[in-house]
Amino acid sequence: MPTISLKGHLMPQSPIRKLVPFAEKAKKRGVKVYHLNIGQPDIKTPQVALDAVKNNNIEILAYSRSEGSETYREKIAAHYKKYHINVSSGDILVTTGGSEALSFTLSSIADTGDEIIIPEPFYANYNGFSVASGLKIVPVTSKIDTNFDLPPIIEFEKLITHKTKAILICNPGNPTGYLYTKEEIQTLARLVKKHDLFLIADEVYRDFIYDNTEHYSILREKEIKDHAIMIDSVSKKYSMCGARIGCIVSKNKDFMATVLKFAQARLSPPTYAQIASEAALDTPQEYFEKITQEYSERRDTLITELKKIKHVKVAEPKGAFYCIAELPICNADDFAKWLLEEFHYNHETIMIAPASGFYSNSSFGKYQVRIAYVLNQEDIKKAITILKHALHEYRYKNDKITVSVASYDIH
Amino acid sequence: MPTISLKGHLMPQSPIRKLVPFAEKAKKRGVKVYHLNIGQPDIKTPQVALDAVKNNNIEILAYSRSEGSETYREKIAAHYKKYHINVSSGDILVTTGGSEALSFTLSSIADTGDEIIIPEPFYANYNGFSVASGLKIVPVTSKIDTNFDLPPIIEFEKLITHKTKAILICNPGNPTGYLYTKEEIQTLARLVKKHDLFLIADEVYRDFIYDNTEHYSILREKEIKDHAIMIDSVSKKYSMCGARIGCIVSKNKDFMATVLKFAQARLSPPTYAQIASEAALDTPQEYFEKITQEYSERRDTLITELKKIKHVKVAEPKGAFYCIAELPICNADDFAKWLLEEFHYNHETIMIAPASGFYSNSSFGKYQVRIAYVLNQEDIKKAITILKHALHEYRYKNDKITVSVASYDIH
Repeated sequence: MPTISLKGHLMPQSPIRKLVPFAEKAKKRGVKVYHLNIGQPDIKTPQVALDAVKNNNIEILAYSRSEGSETYREKIAAHYKKYHINVSSGDILVTTGGSEALSFTLSSIADTGDEIIIPEPFYANYNGFSVASGLKIVPVTSKIDTNFDLPPIIEFEKLITHKTKAILICNPGNPTGYLYTKEEIQTLARLVKKHDLFLIADEVYRDFIYDNTEHYSILREKEIKDHAIMIDSVSKKYSMCGARIGCIVSKNKDFMATVLKFAQARLSPPTYAQIASEAALDTPQEYFEKITQEYSERRDTLITELKKIKHVKVAEPKGAFYCIAELPICNADDFAKWLLEEFHYNHETIMIAPASGFYSNSSFGKYQVRIAYVLNQEDIKKAITILKHALHEYRYKNDKITVSVASYDIH
Repeated sequence: MPTISLKGHLMPQSPIRKLVPFAEKAKKRGVKVYHLNIGQPDIKTPQVALDAVKNNNIEILAYSRSEGSETYREKIAAHYKKYHINVSSGDILVTTGGSEALSFTLSSIADTGDEIIIPEPFYANYNGFSVASGLKIVPVTSKIDTNFDLPPIIEFEKLITHKTKAILICNPGNPTGYLYTKEEIQTLARLVKKHDLFLIADEVYRDFIYDNTEHYSILREKEIKDHAIMIDSVSKKYSMCGARIGCIVSKNKDFMATVLKFAQARLSPPTYAQIASEAALDTPQEYFEKITQEYSERRDTLITELKKIKHVKVAEPKGAFYCIAELPICNADDFAKWLLEEFHYNHETIMIAPASGFYSNSSFGKYQVRIAYVLNQEDIKKAITILKHALHEYRYKNDKITVSVASYDIH
């Protein structure tokens, strides 16, 4: 039989999606599954976007421009002004989701064996994109005990070699909810300028910021206009994950010309989704105000409920809609699978993403899970109650019990 | 300034799309441009597909399954039965266009430095996908003088090394319109089985077959079920290029499991486009009969008109909707650009794709262009008249004149 590539072997399964078949089997057994595993919001997509697609008058569903339509890119540029981001349509290339934006970016700046520094835990698919591009991720590990605060810049600088091509951050962070301060962005800016690296910021959660804090985009730093690459997406902002529209924004003309070549090879981003995304830019402001309020309350509910469970550690997210929780278990992968395969509490269970896949070294995060707070507060409460009972039952089931689990108490 | 990757430098510009800015400038000058450069049909998308999207009742535009929805894949499997292709939904993975299907396939089977044998001229973006995946294309050159007939199988076998991972064919061929016979497919099947290679067939033009001939899919060869990988797309079949939906079909379970990991990393194919594509499967048969008739007539018109121009060589396509024509010029790239930048005939011009990008070595095809017959017959006639006058004018303009051009006569 012909063989699979090494790259194909190394390609990780998605920790967010690999358990889907088990969830489907649970559902077939009549067990209700609360999805805490995936950043798929339950929020309604803006009506203006849905209507634009329903009212489209396409007769020939044709290719669009490889870089996205001119009108859409102009509107995106205008939209960024609200965030004090000053770019023009020529600095924007529309992609098939933030995923493609990241793939094109990594392929454009790094060759096989090149290195990219990423604070971890990081969005799991960064591992996949890096394997696909042949890159090596060099992690800077942040800790749950210090609320996933950014490690000192000196930690980044120590890791820079002649192979380092970029520093990649996710701001606010998936899976930690970490929000970078203006000062941190400026320090990173000085660092990439000094070492002539790219600074890539995945800012797809820019609008999910709580506690009256503010997001500070890397594109506000004029000194690094040739170094800064911003990744964006409509998926989370407009609850339009299924559109598959994102974009790359950079003022580096060589970089944008290179990205365009990758974009031309795949022809164009999806046409219907661009119609929805362009219309979504007209979403009224109160839509976002309501959502921010809602997520802020969900976060508070989730953190409060998690903290009630003994021996569960949790870092407080300042943005996005995830948190990392450390559980009194030996193996979060096994626990997550067991939740779907064997456990139920009143015919209900939860699906969570084991955190090992959010680290460069999968032995980190062995006790941790990512929880997405994309459900309403009542469901979050139910889900965490299920988690509590599951932890209790798992304790008795599991032979390889740790001291912390042994001392764990359901009450 | 931070530097672009070597891969980014090597990535070719699309010969089909690189001249778009020149075409847009021509249009701004008031020159009408006939697009013979791109396989964007002028045929209306099936109403059933357009209606499905207009009548959708989505409230939350959510992610779909990474491999595409179960119902859609089941319907695709049922649809293939018509072509004597016997597969199940589990053998199918839905992708964001045929482009992504090819990228995932190449990444799953080959590592940097591995080789893939492709008869050339081939679809230009195979060059792009190969550079992106780090592969080396090993071409088997077919010639316009022999109507791009497949070179003898011995030519393929001579090129097989320990680095060879696959043979990739496009059937019917873009850009040549070449249609593989059943016997040729069977010979290739024996070859890949003997050397344990994958056989990848890009069959996106399966429905565009003329002269009452039949298409023979590689998936009909049961002996190579673990070797055969078929690439498909809705783009051409349903005139839905802007949907960006394709699929990978294979019975090799290791391969499909690997492809799924790449698919998970990019989350899901676009949701609206899947709705359209699923509905498109219900397109009535007469839609295709009319289209085949129309394209067959367009092909005849195009070939007849091209043959009227002295010193223009053209191979007769048996399928798809392209042909390669050899023109009495020194440099098709320069000519194609000149057509848009400097030339007009009664305020009209044509856009063509220089064929150099359809070869592994760009010096081949230097005198050739790809012409897509995606316009109605009247427009095709006008476009070829423009070509005739353009060749005449270009002859006087160009100092570096070849003998064949010197002897070229407009009448």
